[in-house]
Amino acid sequence: MVGTNTSFDAGTISLSLPQPYLLFLGDTTQAGFAKTAFGLRDWAPDKCTGEYALPTATVSTGLPVLTPAEAHARGARSMLIGVANSGGVIPASWIPALVEALEAGLDIVSGMHVRLASLPELAVLAERLGRQLIDVRHPPLGLTVGTGRKRTGKRLLTVGTDCALGKKYTALAVSRAFAGRGLDVHFRASGQTGIMIAGGGLPMDAVVSDFEAGAAEMLSPDAAPEHWDVIEGQGSLFHPAYAAVSLGLLHGSQPDVLIVCHEPGRTQMLGTPGYALPSLEETIDINLRLGARTNPAIRCAGISFNTAHLGQEEAIAVMAEESRKLGLPVADPIRGGDQFARLVDNCLA
Amino acid sequence: MVGTNTSFDAGTISLSLPQPYLLFLGDTTQAGFAKTAFGLRDWAPDKCTGEYALPTATVSTGLPVLTPAEAHARGARSMLIGVANSGGVIPASWIPALVEALEAGLDIVSGMHVRLASLPELAVLAERLGRQLIDVRHPPLGLTVGTGRKRTGKRLLTVGTDCALGKKYTALAVSRAFAGRGLDVHFRASGQTGIMIAGGGLPMDAVVSDFEAGAAEMLSPDAAPEHWDVIEGQGSLFHPAYAAVSLGLLHGSQPDVLIVCHEPGRTQMLGTPGYALPSLEETIDINLRLGARTNPAIRCAGISFNTAHLGQEEAIAVMAEESRKLGLPVADPIRGGDQFARLVDNCLA
Repeated sequence: MVGTNTSFDAGTISLSLPQPYLLFLGDTTQAGFAKTAFGLRDWAPDKCTGEYALPTATVSTGLPVLTPAEAHARGARSMLIGVANSGGVIPASWIPALVEALEAGLDIVSGMHVRLASLPELAVLAERLGRQLIDVRHPPLGLTVGTGRKRTGKRLLTVGTDCALGKKYTALAVSRAFAGRGLDVHFRASGQTGIMIAGGGLPMDAVVSDFEAGAAEMLSPDAAPEHWDVIEGQGSLFHPAYAAVSLGLLHGSQPDVLIVCHEPGRTQMLGTPGYALPSLEETIDINLRLGARTNPAIRCAGISFNTAHLGQEEAIAVMAEESRKLGLPVADPIRGGDQFARLVDNCLA
Repeated sequence: MVGTNTSFDAGTISLSLPQPYLLFLGDTTQAGFAKTAFGLRDWAPDKCTGEYALPTATVSTGLPVLTPAEAHARGARSMLIGVANSGGVIPASWIPALVEALEAGLDIVSGMHVRLASLPELAVLAERLGRQLIDVRHPPLGLTVGTGRKRTGKRLLTVGTDCALGKKYTALAVSRAFAGRGLDVHFRASGQTGIMIAGGGLPMDAVVSDFEAGAAEMLSPDAAPEHWDVIEGQGSLFHPAYAAVSLGLLHGSQPDVLIVCHEPGRTQMLGTPGYALPSLEETIDINLRLGARTNPAIRCAGISFNTAHLGQEEAIAVMAEESRKLGLPVADPIRGGDQFARLVDNCLA
């Protein structure tokens, strides 16, 4: 399962997070702001000891409610901020709970925009107690430029027609399916929520451009010949803001296999008025063409559809139609079933 | 001329450098390490008051030898470190000269890897005297993600089959030729030497990937309909380390016109063994295809050849042959002549 196969190799330069976590929910009253906590509960349940929230919070993951001291006694090693707010800031009202966690022996893991160490009360206390304040939005030091050298092992990368349509979930589901078939697999996280789930990775969108491909090379280092790295994609080669991230990740990942992720019915790129979504054919073609630069054997194994907005019958019909059109497996990993099994088969073909 | 047309618009977020410069040559004894100083002498002579060096230096630009005080009296506003060394460090032996410059009323401009303000003696003195310590390798704060919004004015971008083969010189030469024809033109610098020549710009390879296209959008802001921004390219879409920089710059620049830069005879990509150079046809095609995402009217106006290693007759023959093959003007901007005039004509066609 993902939970036990995604620990990070020692010796890589990637982030490495102290686990298991106590999930901190702050004072959150809307589930939408607790996406990180729900993602961890769903994809890394064995890494979540419980949850902790302020009295004003109304959202719950359903995990055991524990104080930091109780969580530490049950093995937790860090308290993870599982909620977001619009500014990415840490409100003053959260500080006492974060202090309590440090005093209970837990490190703190955050994906907020503000750096934990910029909050003097936390910085001083963590220093005195020898605890870590870990910001997963910030890449580690020591990144280098890419070399283009072919690495050992097998690699799969999820790419997309746009941002925010299921590249992380697809990579997680494929990792889980590979593990379920007894394969040796790592999920390689390239964004903050994925990094928290995996317990390591690199926030590729925060890496300096000159090091983007080099960072992707570090994210999936040399491995055994039959080992799979399933790499979480970022952005889209067609997105006018984020294509640089996507191309550096594609070149540095040197994938053997691509899965193209798409949301049927989405016609406009996220956040950029006037930009139409590319077709699946065009997305496959340009990814294969650019990816062949660092891996001439690259191929597309199929399409991952995010059909969350469709009913079951309609979703199955849409996927079957697209599969006929492209001659490739098309599946929604969240729905699973035979279609997803065929997509996984084709990744391994 | 470039020298008088490359001042940066107020109000952009780009770096802006105090000019004219006194060029500092340190203790340099090999001309190759003084490339920055020679580039400034050649491309921005009206921004260079003179040169200053330690007694052990043997390299000279031929500009007047002035002390910082003399240079300040003649109008210089900063001393620019015009030399590089392998580590990008500032040796202790240079410090007294840098201190002398600050005391004479000059700011300091550096493209070295080390930050000027990390040297305590300079930091304290600059603070006390109210002088600036400017590191052109480091992008300014406040960059944002790209929007893809079409901007007013005309744009030309130089792209390449590889790194380090003349994208900056080509953009400078085209800027100078446009200005010579009475056009309203800015040279937009995207690397440190270019920034020093232009007096502003953005070091695109040092920008965080998420902001790469957005930074390129800021580098060439809205302008008058007949105004040209001639933008210095970076890297190559085919380079396994640097393609992310190239794609972000291409998308954010939304060029109307491309010039593809190449060194005839070069067969291997710089610093990446096993990577063959792409053909010119392939380079044109992929740049046009990806560039069309943010500017569907993009076209390639011709090819810039770096023929420094060829004799005059051979160079002309090679360019004529390639021009016949591609059906496009091919010229070496350093050699100039009719071929270059035809390339400039076609940019404006």
